[in-house]
Amino acid sequence: MNQPQNQAQGQPETVKNIEEAMRLAAEHACQVKGSTYPNPPVGAVIVDPNGRVVGAGGTEPAGGDHAEVVALRRAGGLAAGGIAVVTMEPCNHFGKTPPCVNALIEARVGTVFYAVPDPNGIAGGGAGRLSAAGVQVRSGVLADQVAAGPMREWLHKQRTGLPHVTWKFATSIDGRSAAADGSSQWISSDAARLDLHRRRAIADTIVVGTGTVIADNPALTARLADGSLADRQPLRVVVGKREVPPEAKVLNDDARTMVIRTHDPVEVLRALSDRTDVLLEGGPTLAGAFLRAGAINRILAYVAPILLGGPVTSVDDVGVSSVANALRWQFDGVEKCGPDLLLSLVAG
Amino acid sequence: MNQPQNQAQGQPETVKNIEEAMRLAAEHACQVKGSTYPNPPVGAVIVDPNGRVVGAGGTEPAGGDHAEVVALRRAGGLAAGGIAVVTMEPCNHFGKTPPCVNALIEARVGTVFYAVPDPNGIAGGGAGRLSAAGVQVRSGVLADQVAAGPMREWLHKQRTGLPHVTWKFATSIDGRSAAADGSSQWISSDAARLDLHRRRAIADTIVVGTGTVIADNPALTARLADGSLADRQPLRVVVGKREVPPEAKVLNDDARTMVIRTHDPVEVLRALSDRTDVLLEGGPTLAGAFLRAGAINRILAYVAPILLGGPVTSVDDVGVSSVANALRWQFDGVEKCGPDLLLSLVAG
Repeated sequence: MNQPQNQAQGQPETVKNIEEAMRLAAEHACQVKGSTYPNPPVGAVIVDPNGRVVGAGGTEPAGGDHAEVVALRRAGGLAAGGIAVVTMEPCNHFGKTPPCVNALIEARVGTVFYAVPDPNGIAGGGAGRLSAAGVQVRSGVLADQVAAGPMREWLHKQRTGLPHVTWKFATSIDGRSAAADGSSQWISSDAARLDLHRRRAIADTIVVGTGTVIADNPALTARLADGSLADRQPLRVVVGKREVPPEAKVLNDDARTMVIRTHDPVEVLRALSDRTDVLLEGGPTLAGAFLRAGAINRILAYVAPILLGGPVTSVDDVGVSSVANALRWQFDGVEKCGPDLLLSLVAG
Repeated sequence: MNQPQNQAQGQPETVKNIEEAMRLAAEHACQVKGSTYPNPPVGAVIVDPNGRVVGAGGTEPAGGDHAEVVALRRAGGLAAGGIAVVTMEPCNHFGKTPPCVNALIEARVGTVFYAVPDPNGIAGGGAGRLSAAGVQVRSGVLADQVAAGPMREWLHKQRTGLPHVTWKFATSIDGRSAAADGSSQWISSDAARLDLHRRRAIADTIVVGTGTVIADNPALTARLADGSLADRQPLRVVVGKREVPPEAKVLNDDARTMVIRTHDPVEVLRALSDRTDVLLEGGPTLAGAFLRAGAINRILAYVAPILLGGPVTSVDDVGVSSVANALRWQFDGVEKCGPDLLLSLVAG
């Protein structure tokens, strides 16, 4: 994802069509993903009648402005008669900020295009309010891409009341998460580990089992390339019945930590019901328990081009006895991470 | 790889530059790969001074014409003053056919571009002979791509005297080659199995262990999408000390079969020194032995988007105790095969 430019400064970018504007809005949404909860990570772009992008932005952290207001502020008077392209239906709700529909109407925007409808009964109704005020409204632009992309975790939370869970594991091409002697540092390349730290900073929660804490003593912080702590740190959650050693790095002051004394994925998710985006970095046993419980929504596999052999696999028992009842997923992305591949899967 | 058109029929294609012509020549080489041994699978394209492709072709099976002669025949009188673009240095050797350099000189081709030099002392010297006859010669065009592509196996054989070995395995994303009950039909999708059968028809040899024959009773033939036998069938080789059951499908009349009574990869390769392109489809034990012996040159992993867990992994002991001495490879390709991914790796 390229770093979008602040469109209010420098030469304005032009877009050829609404899809291109929506892709730009989605980039802005991706930029703010992880920093907006409980609000959705939304992106918005204001386009003038000549196709020039006169304002763009993403939702600010809770209490700050929504994406539409950020983009309108950058557009200033150039928004009048223009088009607003937003990844989600503008809200019609006085929360910590006034409704975005008011801002769009006041800015005299002529048309609003959005990707996904607002599933929230309280904030919803924005499209109707805009239409009633004489603004043209078109929905569904790149809706699938936006729903599967920047809004995936937030929409899952709205739909289920539970956080979205991504299971991440690092593996050799022969499915090992450690060598025969137990060593696992490092199966993944520097590039893959940096990518993981970037994802940790976006997630709001990291879950591991007591087994991983005792075996590997990870800090579970999000770090930048130079080793310093990222601005935003996810909540660290340790699950299981074994004692967490008081000197464990996961208990240090670099981020908050919660200990949940159960193995049961359902109880863990219930305890984390105020979270949105959980990254499960557990070992083979915890991952197996979550998979058996159907409690995983995405799988990210960092596959290193190495062979290890031996007894330590990335997951043990997933509750499958025969190929006929394999757990079936589907690939939804493949990326190169330095020498490694990052495979992404969603439920089939 | 698109099916190249016979350039002598219909509207001639044009190429913008020599690289594009070489890519077309490489496609013709890929088309004939597997059918030319002991000759190299070469592709050739004849381009007239306006950039029109006036002839193209690949090497015919042993005893037939080499690629240059096939392409020149299709070009007829249009080759005079034109350019020949060939994946390998034209031969200067009377074997079963006269030297290709003679044909190029007689056709009054003005310039010859080739990718890789002929490593063969007897057939070599073609470039020098052409220059002496007043033909311009340029070498090294897309040499790396051609050497790593259609000519990989043949060049390996020339360099080492041993066949090139590709280890193929089908795996779940958690590295299993069967479920806990031993079932493995089918981990891979129909599309992946069809791709494998296409590769079997290109390879000249398939190797499995007696363990696989006894457990799975595979026919090890190359079949088309409709289930019928492909025109070309690889030699089937069963290695190991256990008895092959007389009713085993691998002993049927659909292709030839060789039994080699050893586990030692070095002895196996020595017994197959007249072969060029070996596809190892062995189970975890045989694959491990080949990996430990450094006897594998390429890995093809068909990765299905499923999870199986359990004890059956794609390979067992690869002679690695710690991550520090992992067997290191590098990815050189990722393809989608229906719902599966095909990962290709070469030695790092």
